[in-house]
Formats: sequence, C-alpha cells, structure tokens
Amino acid sequence: MSFNSQLSERVNQSQSNLCVGLDIAPENFPDAVVGLSELQDHCKKVIHATSEFAAAYKPNLAFFERWGSEGIRWLEDTLKLIPSNAIVIGDGKRGDIGNTATQYTKSLFEHFGFDAVTVNPFMGRDAIKPFLSDPGKGAFILCRTSNDSASDLQSSEVIQKTIDLSMEINELDNVGLVIGATAPEELKSIRDKAPEIPFLIPGVGAQGGDLESSLKNGTRNGLALINVSRGISFAGDLSEQAIHDAAGNYVKKMRDILNES
Amino acid sequence: MSFNSQLSERVNQSQSNLCVGLDIAPENFPDAVVGLSELQDHCKKVIHATSEFAAAYKPNLAFFERWGSEGIRWLEDTLKLIPSNAIVIGDGKRGDIGNTATQYTKSLFEHFGFDAVTVNPFMGRDAIKPFLSDPGKGAFILCRTSNDSASDLQSSEVIQKTIDLSMEINELDNVGLVIGATAPEELKSIRDKAPEIPFLIPGVGAQGGDLESSLKNGTRNGLALINVSRGISFAGDLSEQAIHDAAGNYVKKMRDILNES
Repeated sequence: MSFNSQLSERVNQSQSNLCVGLDIAPENFPDAVVGLSELQDHCKKVIHATSEFAAAYKPNLAFFERWGSEGIRWLEDTLKLIPSNAIVIGDGKRGDIGNTATQYTKSLFEHFGFDAVTVNPFMGRDAIKPFLSDPGKGAFILCRTSNDSASDLQSSEVIQKTIDLSMEINELDNVGLVIGATAPEELKSIRDKAPEIPFLIPGVGAQGGDLESSLKNGTRNGLALINVSRGISFAGDLSEQAIHDAAGNYVKKMRDILNES
Repeated sequence: MSFNSQLSERVNQSQSNLCVGLDIAPENFPDAVVGLSELQDHCKKVIHATSEFAAAYKPNLAFFERWGSEGIRWLEDTLKLIPSNAIVIGDGKRGDIGNTATQYTKSLFEHFGFDAVTVNPFMGRDAIKPFLSDPGKGAFILCRTSNDSASDLQSSEVIQKTIDLSMEINELDNVGLVIGATAPEELKSIRDKAPEIPFLIPGVGAQGGDLESSLKNGTRNGLALINVSRGISFAGDLSEQAIHDAAGNYVKKMRDILNES
C-alpha cells in the first residue's frame, strides 16, 4: 500500500488529523538544569499521554542530534515507544545530491524505520527522488514554510515550481507537501494547485497559525495533518494529565471543525 | 578572530586550498561486505594519509548518521583524529526555523565542535542566522549546487537573492557560499557579485567539475576551498600510499595553477 494510502487510512481509523511533534529541549522546562535523562522521561510521558489522540508523531532530529551519539540513541529508544499503528515522520529537512540523499534514506528509512520524512527541495529532484523509490515510504517536501523569513526565497514562482515538481515526481503516491499554518492565503491557493497531495501543516500553536482555517483549507481537496509540538508536549504544568488534555482538546476541536464544514 | 580570517590564515599557512571530504560508504569498496569497523579504519587511514595536504576536512553527516547512534559515535571519534590546525566543516546542509536551527548549532558547534557548517537557504534568514552568532564559527550557504537538478529551483533570481541575503547577513565575517564546480560560468559570475566571501567548491573529481577553472575563478576575488571526496578517499587501490599520492597530486596541481595565474 502506498504511503499516502496508509496515511489516509490511519487518519480515518483514528478519526484524528493530529501529528504530535517531538521537539523536547531543556529550554522549555521551568527548571534551570535539565539533562538528557529528564528529557527522555518527558518524551516517554508525551508519547504515553497522546497515543490515543495522535494519528502521527514527528520527532525533530535536531533535538536529538544536539546530544550527539547519546541523543541519537535516545531517538532509537523513542521510536520503540511509539505505537506501531501511528505514522512516524522523521523531521530532518534533508536535501543533498543523489549519492548523499541515498545515505539519508538508509539512515531514516532503513536504520530508524521512519514511515516518512521531510525534505528540502532547494537542490531539485536529485535531492528528493531517492526518498521516493519505496512506495510504502513517503516524503513531505517543504513548499511554503511557517517561519517569518520564508518569503526571502519562497517567492510565488519558487512555490509554483515546487508544487509542479512535487506533482511530477509523485508517481508512486508517496509525496506530500509542508505548508505552514502561518500563511493561510497561500495554503488555500496551494491546496487548489495541488489536489489530493497530503499536507503536513506546522505552525499551529506556539508559532501562531490558525487551526480552523488551516484544517478547513488543508482538507478541502485532500488530507491534512496538523502538527503541534510545544503546544502539546509542554502544555500546562507539564504533567501527563495536562499533556493528555491538550492533545484531546486539539483533536476535539478538529473533529468539531470538520463536522461543521 | 573571525571564521573567514581563520580560514584565510589556514589556507596561507598550509599553502593548500584542498578540503578533503569524508564520505565513507561501503558501496565504494570493491568487497561485497564492509561493516562499520572497516569504515572506521578506512576513515582513519584517509585522515592520516592526507593531513599534510588538507587545509580543511568536511565530514558528510549522512554517511555517519546512516549507522544510527554507532555512526554518530564514529563521527565523534573521527573528529578527534583530525589535526587541530585544520578547519573542520560539518556538511549537513541543515535549514529549519530559528528554534530548531538553534538546536542544530548546539549539535554542530557545541557538541561536535565543527568550525563551520553547510546550511540550506530555502527557509530564509531565520534558518541561517543562528549559525552566525559566534564570529569564530562559519556557515557556508548553498547558492549554486553541483548536482544535475540544481536548476530545478536555483534560477538566476534565486541565486541572486541568495547572494544578496548572504552578503547582508555577513556582519561578523563568517559567511561563505557553496558553489558547484560543475557550473563554471555561474561560478565566475557569482564570484563577481560576491567579492571576498569564501567559496566552498564541491563537484571536482567524481562529479566531473573542472579543477583549473574552478580554482582560477573561485580565487579571483576571494578565497576558494576545493572539496574532493571520493577522488581522494577512494583513490587507486585504497591504500594509504594511493590516498596520500592523490591528495598530494591535487595540492600540487592547485599550487601550479595558482602560481601560473
């Protein structure tokens, strides 16, 4: 089954469009000194507290790599804790020449076993195609990112080229796009131009993107995963209950939005 | 001392413009089965054989990450073997929102201790600035890459924007550009538009870029590091002597080219 079909089935079965981002940094804790062991405990807590709500998880590789080989071991251990029916997206935004991209596929798909990854299109199709050779594995291509300086390079022309390229190389039904919630008009317009291709939408929560418009526009003509990281994993008093409730609230809101539309 | 000054001093003292890329993959060995231990031995051999010639080393993170936490431990061990006077560039081509880019700086500069990194400009200045806050550490921004599909997104407009952005954020004299040797006319034109900014030039050797034109044009109005990976680390019969001779030949050729011009 193609990655995009697996993703669609998972969203339907879980009745959830929520992707829980795992960006666990010591800077997000109120205590001054938090070490790797506390981060590991918290990460485990986040997965446990959200497993009934999350259609997908998105570990952000930077937050693990920061600790070197011990951090990567933490990532390996973390992946074993994620329920096997959830989709797991490795958020590394890799992009390199074919020879190197192939090494990244061996890392992300073969070693870590991610179901999908995020990739950067700056180097063109050579940098993306190695991630698409197995139909069961997917790649979400950065198209319009959620950050303030996205428009430095992401002109309407560059966005159009990225959409065209993405549609063209989606031969095995395993390409998605990353579209930030912080650019609602562009999200709407890209949804028209790229029907059916799944959207991974970051930027809701800490970055200020609007949930309702992102979800409505993102699902108008295809599937949308809404990623929330800090808004869930550092909710309230950081207790398992607070994290559970935050994830539950997001999913309830999303179900309400989709039911009324 | 700023990163660009350190780099300049190193190139002058070593009388070398050679950057040795460390892209050590089992696929490059004639034997069918090569494990991590053989790769570690070979990597050590490459560093030992090239240390008298290399101004810089560029470990490519994908080739280490492929093996998970054990591969990252191999990277940690490898960095200890590189002579302390050589410049060490972490080639990860990272690019992410500020919050995540900061985690990558903690990884690449603080944990691994790279002197510089390669970064991807697709997400704009937010994704680059965290790498520039310490003047002693540098970032080589992808501008015109060496691969066949570079032109998918890297139009003359995108290249111009990348140059302008790079010059603008080079406040602490620690920005460089990655310009592929496989696009000699663009290299020449970018050198005119970005005087003094150091160039990191991959694509000579296995990718077919021309050494003479790259070096002449790259150094016309600034500094150029010529990266060679497979052409050195998998030279001849893969013996220490063959690798040593390949590096020595590259440096001799480069000195001749620079002396005659």
